[in-house]
Amino acid sequence: MSSEFRYQRRVQFAETDLAGIVHFSEMFRYMEEAEHAMWREAGLTIAERGSDLGWPRLNAALEFRNPLRFEEEFEVWVRIAELKTRTIEYEFTLVRGQTVIAVGTMTAVCVRKLPDGTMRAAEIPASIRHALEAL
Amino acid sequence: MSSEFRYQRRVQFAETDLAGIVHFSEMFRYMEEAEHAMWREAGLTIAERGSDLGWPRLNAALEFRNPLRFEEEFEVWVRIAELKTRTIEYEFTLVRGQTVIAVGTMTAVCVRKLPDGTMRAAEIPASIRHALEAL
Amino acid sequence: MSSEFRYQRRVQFAETDLAGIVHFSEMFRYMEEAEHAMWREAGLTIAERGSDLGWPRLNAALEFRNPLRFEEEFEVWVRIAELKTRTIEYEFTLVRGQTVIAVGTMTAVCVRKLPDGTMRAAEIPASIRHALEAL
Amino acid sequence: MSSEFRYQRRVQFAETDLAGIVHFSEMFRYMEEAEHAMWREAGLTIAERGSDLGWPRLNAALEFRNPLRFEEEFEVWVRIAELKTRTIEYEFTLVRGQTVIAVGTMTAVCVRKLPDGTMRAAEIPASIRHALEAL
Repeated sequence: MSSEFRYQRRVQFAETDLAGIVHFSEMFRYMEEAEHAMWREAGLTIAERGSDLGWPRLNAALEFRNPLRFEEEFEVWVRIAELKTRTIEYEFTLVRGQTVIAVGTMTAVCVRKLPDGTMRAAEIPASIRHALEAL
Repeated sequence: MSSEFRYQRRVQFAETDLAGIVHFSEMFRYMEEAEHAMWREAGLTIAERGSDLGWPRLNAALEFRNPLRFEEEFEVWVRIAELKTRTIEYEFTLVRGQTVIAVGTMTAVCVRKLPDGTMRAAEIPASIRHALEAL
Repeated sequence: MSSEFRYQRRVQFAETDLAGIVHFSEMFRYMEEAEHAMWREAGLTIAERGSDLGWPRLNAALEFRNPLRFEEEFEVWVRIAELKTRTIEYEFTLVRGQTVIAVGTMTAVCVRKLPDGTMRAAEIPASIRHALEAL
Repeated sequence: MSSEFRYQRRVQFAETDLAGIVHFSEMFRYMEEAEHAMWREAGLTIAERGSDLGWPRLNAALEFRNPLRFEEEFEVWVRIAELKTRTIEYEFTLVRGQTVIAVGTMTAVCVRKLPDGTMRAAEIPASIRHALEAL
């Protein structure tokens, strides 16, 4: 559960803004891309077709240390800090070479979607828990 | 059916890119925002909750004449060029004051979503047709 | 400096994801849109053309309380919590009617862009400070 | 000049919309990502730091044949259909396995950015022309 997964990425043009650097909101997308790649590494998908499970975010936070620019290659290091009954707490570090771009956290909660479209927090299924713990 | 709907908008920071102007892909989002605002003007919504109807795009095209920049106010003029049995053909003009920013077209097709997640083209319901024709 | 600015917005289609709700990264864009609207209210712009000033983000965080859905209207309430020598700390609340969607914070730092493309933290100019304090 | 470049990609969560498929505006981003990857393959970058050259789009069009869904892997095939004095006309095909997702075109124009922030069409530099022709 404490092992780290590393996701590689390159900055795309549309992710930059008029300041010439990656827009900060894109960094949150990078976080999530790394999370989902980690799930694939565990043999899982965060959005299984036909499933009533969902994983909305309870919170997300980033500290920005250095800018990222067009075409730069970087990595997102993601680690599960805590796997609770219903929530997963992730820790992230974005790095370009030896330079830390950003550090942050995100918490996802396991929910079941009800027929009326609302969501109710639910226990993380054992199969998912075990696959994530085995990373 | 030939009346024009005008949608007002301001350029947001995250919509610009390192060239200092709005990224061209955002112009396609502006087109769609105007389409949906026109539907609301007709008392409709393009995504009715619980409905099995959907309106995927068959094609979209824009010619870019002039750049748009951060915080500029502009309008999207949208017109239904043709309302066929199963498709709607839209024409768009993006303007900032007297300056044409872009002109383009988009075609949406009415579909019904099947239980297996696929979609099948369907006739546009009469109530929607009449509401759009009454614009 | 403690007065609150309220920014109105409607959810657009492209801001939703396959879970049927607004993607969490879009909420950070909403925060920033409200910040920039507050600057305009103060007679300012966060990106003055030809200026060497910039306002990169040092951190951004949101707690998500309730989902937002397509076409829903909501408000972003933004307040300057602290206006320091070089940084501005904002507090945000996203609300739809009586329902709190999200609460969060963001810190922007004043920088001057150097000829080599790098940025250096700088004192917030008095004119900007006074305009923000007068809100 | 007629050789084809193939760019590989996976659909990310934030690129989907409430219809459960990739939002059509994201397909235009995929086109551009493939273009830029082709430039890198030619030893070029479309946004050289410190250069006064830019490559705004004159037009972009896509026909959508089949939907793309979360986590699907696909390719963008890009080909330079015509390399003129000042413009580059690209052709694109998005494919997932044997399924065509979309086909389209895009034209970019070479410009020089003037000190006042405006842009003027310019001849494509010989070094760039030769590198693209050598693909």
